[in-house]
Amino acid sequence: MTFTAPVTEQLFVLKHITGIEELAAHERFADASTDMVEAIVGGIGEFAASEFYPLRRIGDTVGARLIDGRVVMPDGFVDAYKAYVANGWGSINAPADFGGQGLPFSLATVALDSLGAANMAFALCPILSVGAIEAINHHGSDAQKAMFLPLLSTGEWTGTMNLTEPQAGSDVGALKTTATPRGDGTYQIKGQKIYISFGDHDMAGNIVHLVLARTPDAPAGTKGISLFLVPKYRVNEDGSLGQRNDIKVVSIEHKMGINASPTCVLAFGDEGECVGELIGPEFGGMRAMFTMMNNARLNVGLEGVQIAEAATQKAVAFAQDRVQSARAGGTSRDSVAIIEHPDVRRMLMRMKAGTQAIRALLYCASGFVDRAALGIEGAQEMVDLLTPLAKTYGTDMGSEIASLGIQVHGGMGFIEETGAAQLYRDIRIAAIYEGTNGIQAADLVGRKLGMRGGDAIRDHLARIGQEAGNHGALKALAGACTEVTEWMIGSASTDEKLAGSYPFTTMMAVATSGWLMARQLRAAEAEGGNTPFLRAKIAACRYYLDVMVPEALSLKGSAMVGAELLYTLDAEGMAA
Amino acid sequence: MTFTAPVTEQLFVLKHITGIEELAAHERFADASTDMVEAIVGGIGEFAASEFYPLRRIGDTVGARLIDGRVVMPDGFVDAYKAYVANGWGSINAPADFGGQGLPFSLATVALDSLGAANMAFALCPILSVGAIEAINHHGSDAQKAMFLPLLSTGEWTGTMNLTEPQAGSDVGALKTTATPRGDGTYQIKGQKIYISFGDHDMAGNIVHLVLARTPDAPAGTKGISLFLVPKYRVNEDGSLGQRNDIKVVSIEHKMGINASPTCVLAFGDEGECVGELIGPEFGGMRAMFTMMNNARLNVGLEGVQIAEAATQKAVAFAQDRVQSARAGGTSRDSVAIIEHPDVRRMLMRMKAGTQAIRALLYCASGFVDRAALGIEGAQEMVDLLTPLAKTYGTDMGSEIASLGIQVHGGMGFIEETGAAQLYRDIRIAAIYEGTNGIQAADLVGRKLGMRGGDAIRDHLARIGQEAGNHGALKALAGACTEVTEWMIGSASTDEKLAGSYPFTTMMAVATSGWLMARQLRAAEAEGGNTPFLRAKIAACRYYLDVMVPEALSLKGSAMVGAELLYTLDAEGMAA
Repeated sequence: MTFTAPVTEQLFVLKHITGIEELAAHERFADASTDMVEAIVGGIGEFAASEFYPLRRIGDTVGARLIDGRVVMPDGFVDAYKAYVANGWGSINAPADFGGQGLPFSLATVALDSLGAANMAFALCPILSVGAIEAINHHGSDAQKAMFLPLLSTGEWTGTMNLTEPQAGSDVGALKTTATPRGDGTYQIKGQKIYISFGDHDMAGNIVHLVLARTPDAPAGTKGISLFLVPKYRVNEDGSLGQRNDIKVVSIEHKMGINASPTCVLAFGDEGECVGELIGPEFGGMRAMFTMMNNARLNVGLEGVQIAEAATQKAVAFAQDRVQSARAGGTSRDSVAIIEHPDVRRMLMRMKAGTQAIRALLYCASGFVDRAALGIEGAQEMVDLLTPLAKTYGTDMGSEIASLGIQVHGGMGFIEETGAAQLYRDIRIAAIYEGTNGIQAADLVGRKLGMRGGDAIRDHLARIGQEAGNHGALKALAGACTEVTEWMIGSASTDEKLAGSYPFTTMMAVATSGWLMARQLRAAEAEGGNTPFLRAKIAACRYYLDVMVPEALSLKGSAMVGAELLYTLDAEGMAA
Repeated sequence: MTFTAPVTEQLFVLKHITGIEELAAHERFADASTDMVEAIVGGIGEFAASEFYPLRRIGDTVGARLIDGRVVMPDGFVDAYKAYVANGWGSINAPADFGGQGLPFSLATVALDSLGAANMAFALCPILSVGAIEAINHHGSDAQKAMFLPLLSTGEWTGTMNLTEPQAGSDVGALKTTATPRGDGTYQIKGQKIYISFGDHDMAGNIVHLVLARTPDAPAGTKGISLFLVPKYRVNEDGSLGQRNDIKVVSIEHKMGINASPTCVLAFGDEGECVGELIGPEFGGMRAMFTMMNNARLNVGLEGVQIAEAATQKAVAFAQDRVQSARAGGTSRDSVAIIEHPDVRRMLMRMKAGTQAIRALLYCASGFVDRAALGIEGAQEMVDLLTPLAKTYGTDMGSEIASLGIQVHGGMGFIEETGAAQLYRDIRIAAIYEGTNGIQAADLVGRKLGMRGGDAIRDHLARIGQEAGNHGALKALAGACTEVTEWMIGSASTDEKLAGSYPFTTMMAVATSGWLMARQLRAAEAEGGNTPFLRAKIAACRYYLDVMVPEALSLKGSAMVGAELLYTLDAEGMAA
């Protein structure tokens, strides 16, 4: 079994969905020429397959370990990470002013697509660094940018996000970690954070922790939260590393998957010697957190694409090899490869179509991130609208496809050595972290539905309906989404909106993905449709539009069912 | 965290869905009086909670181990198993002529429901014994019955099913294990079998392996297969144990879940000293295999119910305890238990309704197994029809509910110590073994659709439609199923039927479950609906009928989409 990055597919989607050529027409992204894009996409694909993929299994079986208070990565990870840094794969989208390449976020998305398909747990490390870079770049002082961004940009240092505490998960405002002024402009940080991905490891020279905490007398809730930069090793003014900061790795979690990603419990300031500095204004923590998390949500949605790609490649290869039984509908009694059996085909076509649909959704969102960075009108609105869809549907579809991947393997799918089970275990976290999918759905019906008085979502759905062409189910789905939208904007109560938020999010995501699959279908046909890639693309688009889009139609009832059914029982009655 | 068997629910479903009182009216099941049923259901529930449940986690973390060629169960399993035997819980439905209690299969189903909800991997052991008992009872000689059934019936000995070989999975006919006459009426068995659940362990005095093999010059394929009884320890004529048979445990598999269930690779006859005896006629292996597997398929469908119950209890308890954020639609800014948040409610109601729906489906099928044993007309037809629905939908819904269980826990759901992840890992095998769900779907559109020229399924759907009452979606779903049925019986090709078999199976299962939920709703209302249990039952039935049944309507398109979309690409093109 090997892994091959889907380079042809990635370039096709970059061209027809992201609109990479249009982006490159802007001076800021002029470096993203066709040649450069092909070189990057091909290069990262080869790198992912040769350096990250061989470590997928040891990452699972050995995993990150806590030894003498430090996290030790499995054999091979340190060298692979150093090669990743040396090749410049981490700096694609990092700010050009601080050592990055300043290329489109869309290209960083492709890089992460390949890296994570090869090894999802490993590729999580750079995602966290991106969050730290974004927060520092948007909210840090010039001195902070100069001090931290260059080495974060190359990946020589990595970053973390420290939000969660035992009593404060989705409810960030409940956090208790404190930051007390030390009189020299720095703060003494004290508190315990949990679920800190790559909170410690041995691959980078330093780790830059971004920590949400409360200053003395801060107001309760989210309004009183500030963001602090707390490095593993303090940094001297000349940029050299000073003494180790007072941050202890209390433990790392035993998780169902992504075992190569150390999920740390970190104790800040147990000895009273944990020094941090404020990023942005006091009480600006929530704003900075959303900066950190926003692209991270897209990158987590992309984990669905990564695992879907890996699972599909594995399942197709297995089904081509595994011979079992004659084909019931055929004339020969000879046994055939199981890929010939209709229900195996159904599973594989669903996997292929689903993978391509969520890739298109994620790459589309990335394209709008770049347009927003260029200041193009309406682009940020599309990012805001697409983010909850891409995070939720990307991760849900990733889990479904990983499950189908197990099923195609039959009994072997349940055996760990096969590797299909690891994909299923790894991806399950993605629907949870960076805001659970339920939180994403609440975001859609809460913040996003009301953008421009509802016209943002109305315009988007109208466009889907207009471009649906002869795809009747897609047109119908856009119509159903519009109906739910108008009800939610109109008479629905908060409870009713939230009660229907999850199915509505799925409907919206399928409609948007269907729209992008229809566009890819037209593009593939326009290109003649006569290469193996284009034929497969056309088949996957048709399958998505004809089989998977119609399934979402029936969610309309669930989206509009209201809250009464959910609250006929009280909390105690739910246990009866 | 504790586990409580859902005794009130089980008794309600036994009464209104299984029709246990109607069964007890037959002389054969006269012992199944209301008092006896309540004593058994209450007793097994307590036993499962106190003896099996505390071993759930050690079964996962330590698991069954292969030590010096023998499988050693985790601490506590041997004693718990001995208590299970001593209490007579294994013999509920075992043949009364051979030491069993001869009670309805429906009661054994309830027992297994509780045992498996407490500890799915452990409860798998008795399922295999049931298969061995059934095969010997239906196809064995009087001497074989007398020799093996009494100790299998009590559970002092356990049984296994040996079907699969590396090249012969779903394609049983490809198996190569040989059985050569030794001249004394016995056979020399030689070959390797894989995926043998509880193929070895240290809980029982003997293990009775039922092995499919080929006699010399047997015809190729399934027609040449015979069934052999191959005990771990040979049995002397006086019933005492003789020498160990030539059966080696080559290895046990590393699996994603059910780690307490040793999945063995067994080598029969490596030393040329593996003695077995024929069960039933030569070449009667396939028929005997279906006897073994038929109720086993229902028991595997029941694993979905087990895990769904366990996951739902755990999620509800967590959601009652975990406090996060104020309710968005409420007036207070105080944080509430997450069970008050609409989307958490949605997940929990879906878990409750789904669990009850599949329990009803499985208990309904069990009732028809008992009616078939009583020779009641039409009962076997219902067993045949319901089995693929119950196996497929039971296991799929079990996986979905386990996944929701993780989601309700948020980040903690992904941490192994929480226990929600184990349920998700454990249940994933159930869609695969005892005939993959795809094989079940093929069985539905192959063998079952044509029963009585299609009238079996037509009558069933007509009844659902008639009893749907004012549940419009259920009526519509029955209609949609009928439409698919007529198309499949009529003009659809084999490929087309198989291409739509899986969505059709799901539609049929939801329609059948909806029918049973509507019946429970009426029964709960007729009982006044004013206890905590009845209120929760009514809420769950309404949720299933109003939200979950409509979702299945959209599968009609997928069921009737045909095979063309699946075969536009050739096998090689699927990899593009």
